[in-house]
Amino acid sequence: MNQRLQNLSIWLKEHDISFAFITSTPNVFYLSNFHSDPHERLLALVAFPDKEPLLICPQMEVLQAKQTGWIYDVIGYSDIDNPWELISKYINHQNIHVSKIAVEKSHLTMERYEQIHTYFPGASFLNVEEKLRELRMIKDETEIAILRQAAELADFGVETGVKALAEGKTELEVIAAIEFELKKKGVREMSFATMVLTGEKTAAPHGVPGLARIKKGDFVLFDLGVVLDGYCSDITRTVAFGEVTGQQKEMYETVLKAQIAAIRTCKPGVEIGQIDKAARTVIEQAGYGEYFTHRVGHGLGIDVHEYPSMNSTNTTPLQQGMVFTIEPGIYVPAIGGVRIEDDVFITKDGVEILTKYPKELQII
Amino acid sequence: MNQRLQNLSIWLKEHDISFAFITSTPNVFYLSNFHSDPHERLLALVAFPDKEPLLICPQMEVLQAKQTGWIYDVIGYSDIDNPWELISKYINHQNIHVSKIAVEKSHLTMERYEQIHTYFPGASFLNVEEKLRELRMIKDETEIAILRQAAELADFGVETGVKALAEGKTELEVIAAIEFELKKKGVREMSFATMVLTGEKTAAPHGVPGLARIKKGDFVLFDLGVVLDGYCSDITRTVAFGEVTGQQKEMYETVLKAQIAAIRTCKPGVEIGQIDKAARTVIEQAGYGEYFTHRVGHGLGIDVHEYPSMNSTNTTPLQQGMVFTIEPGIYVPAIGGVRIEDDVFITKDGVEILTKYPKELQII
Repeated sequence: MNQRLQNLSIWLKEHDISFAFITSTPNVFYLSNFHSDPHERLLALVAFPDKEPLLICPQMEVLQAKQTGWIYDVIGYSDIDNPWELISKYINHQNIHVSKIAVEKSHLTMERYEQIHTYFPGASFLNVEEKLRELRMIKDETEIAILRQAAELADFGVETGVKALAEGKTELEVIAAIEFELKKKGVREMSFATMVLTGEKTAAPHGVPGLARIKKGDFVLFDLGVVLDGYCSDITRTVAFGEVTGQQKEMYETVLKAQIAAIRTCKPGVEIGQIDKAARTVIEQAGYGEYFTHRVGHGLGIDVHEYPSMNSTNTTPLQQGMVFTIEPGIYVPAIGGVRIEDDVFITKDGVEILTKYPKELQII
Repeated sequence: MNQRLQNLSIWLKEHDISFAFITSTPNVFYLSNFHSDPHERLLALVAFPDKEPLLICPQMEVLQAKQTGWIYDVIGYSDIDNPWELISKYINHQNIHVSKIAVEKSHLTMERYEQIHTYFPGASFLNVEEKLRELRMIKDETEIAILRQAAELADFGVETGVKALAEGKTELEVIAAIEFELKKKGVREMSFATMVLTGEKTAAPHGVPGLARIKKGDFVLFDLGVVLDGYCSDITRTVAFGEVTGQQKEMYETVLKAQIAAIRTCKPGVEIGQIDKAARTVIEQAGYGEYFTHRVGHGLGIDVHEYPSMNSTNTTPLQQGMVFTIEPGIYVPAIGGVRIEDDVFITKDGVEILTKYPKELQII
């Protein structure tokens, strides 16, 4: 079994769990390398403490599962089969006494819970999500290699967006230009809805791009990322379109200083809260503390938001293999906002910055 | 209360249900006109048999909910509140004896089910989804007006794609051109991942667009739609790039004939299975029966696939206000495929075709 499945099996054994029944697309992908989202149809990976795992998927996907490297048992079911019956038969043939089942409680639907409960009526249920979040938090070399490439494409996205800026263009037109060029490079999916905001709209950390037009003296904020081989990147850059005011420049320089301070704090052993603190201190000292309204970053991987959460109260120490964003911002209502975001990876003794698009204030 | 909430309340009363607890974004939108997806945070609409409904959402969304027209109670909660406690307090203040709760069993997660169960320990649970599917199946005039506009944008998407065709261009480049022009018109979201397939790849009804290049003698298949004001459109057209063979032409003419036959069958009172049959008979008589491997269509609305299911065994009669796709296809492995899809609306005595892009074989 691969290292990921082995780690899960050890945990199942430690907690005396009969099996884990994993149904979310990202977690099944993480454990099997098989990426599938059959919507209302069932996809599940069953992991045991002491035996090889089992995959359940629609019949028409069995071949694809095997092609992505799944070498264990697969139950393929047709639209007239009852997959729950097939699973329960399989497990009963193994002579397992089913007492505890680990599921993803924030993903498993009530309908599916009722099915499992029907076929294994005596079992109790516990949550496997925390364990999977922990496992996914530490990336291996394969994952880092993909994340590096995904970050490179994010850099290219910002580069394209900056080149596309012109007075009077709408936010949506700039987004279209970015995604057009990324598609030409073979990118099929963005890791979230690409954000290009201009003028006062940059003051909303989660603003919605629309038909607002780029004009002189405005900040333009890009926040985007791509999905590559199942992994996400996420970059933010803010540029000035034409000359900006002294206050806008001060905001920019403060965010940049804060972002660099946070990155410099990163190495194994440092408490995660310290990263947020490093950025926040710079912003507070410049008098913008109340305008930095969110955590400094988030873990990044198969999901665009995953563990670790880079908030001020997280006392977990940084570990080699963690990948996360560092993205302080200042948002002043009616004036505008600045955010600068990189993806970083904790190495053996420091940090590697995956996104590399320049960060000095650009006046376009 | 609006007609939709009234219809739901009547059903709750008939079935002696204490309240419905509705948490999926599309169903909350349908009942409230408030479109929100707060991800892991709770969004819920509570409908009662005999009193006004209640909305629960994150505090920062309360204003937006009211702005979209919600005139009833709202519970806004912050990240340090326990929304479940606030809900249970609200309901207990109403002196309701809670015995039966209707939920969306294929959407409600086990985590949330456990919360509801904790606060209302004596209650039994039943599924409200079938009732909501039924209600959403019959569109009102407001919905039809939006669907008409969404279909018009889908027409424009195909028109743009056809204009963008050129020898050697990749499928993804053509998609980029389509989405670029739609974004310029203010479209923020496609109703599903835009599909442009070429050559042999057209033989897969759910093929994945990529770096395949357009070349002479190939079919090019477009399947796309937009989301407008919360409603989806969905169109498919197939065109020939350069001269095609006699067999390709025969396939095309057969699909077109089948599609027109199916549309001609549509009027209130006709069993849904008859629509599939009308198309299938034409294709079978031309000898391509085994290559028409899916149902003739699907309902369309807030979800791109909803009720009614346009399959051969559906005995439900068509009713005024139903909106669905009609999309027969022929897929011959190693040769290619043709699909033609329109969105249609059942009127008082017939059918209105919402998508209007021409259907005669175009040789580009």
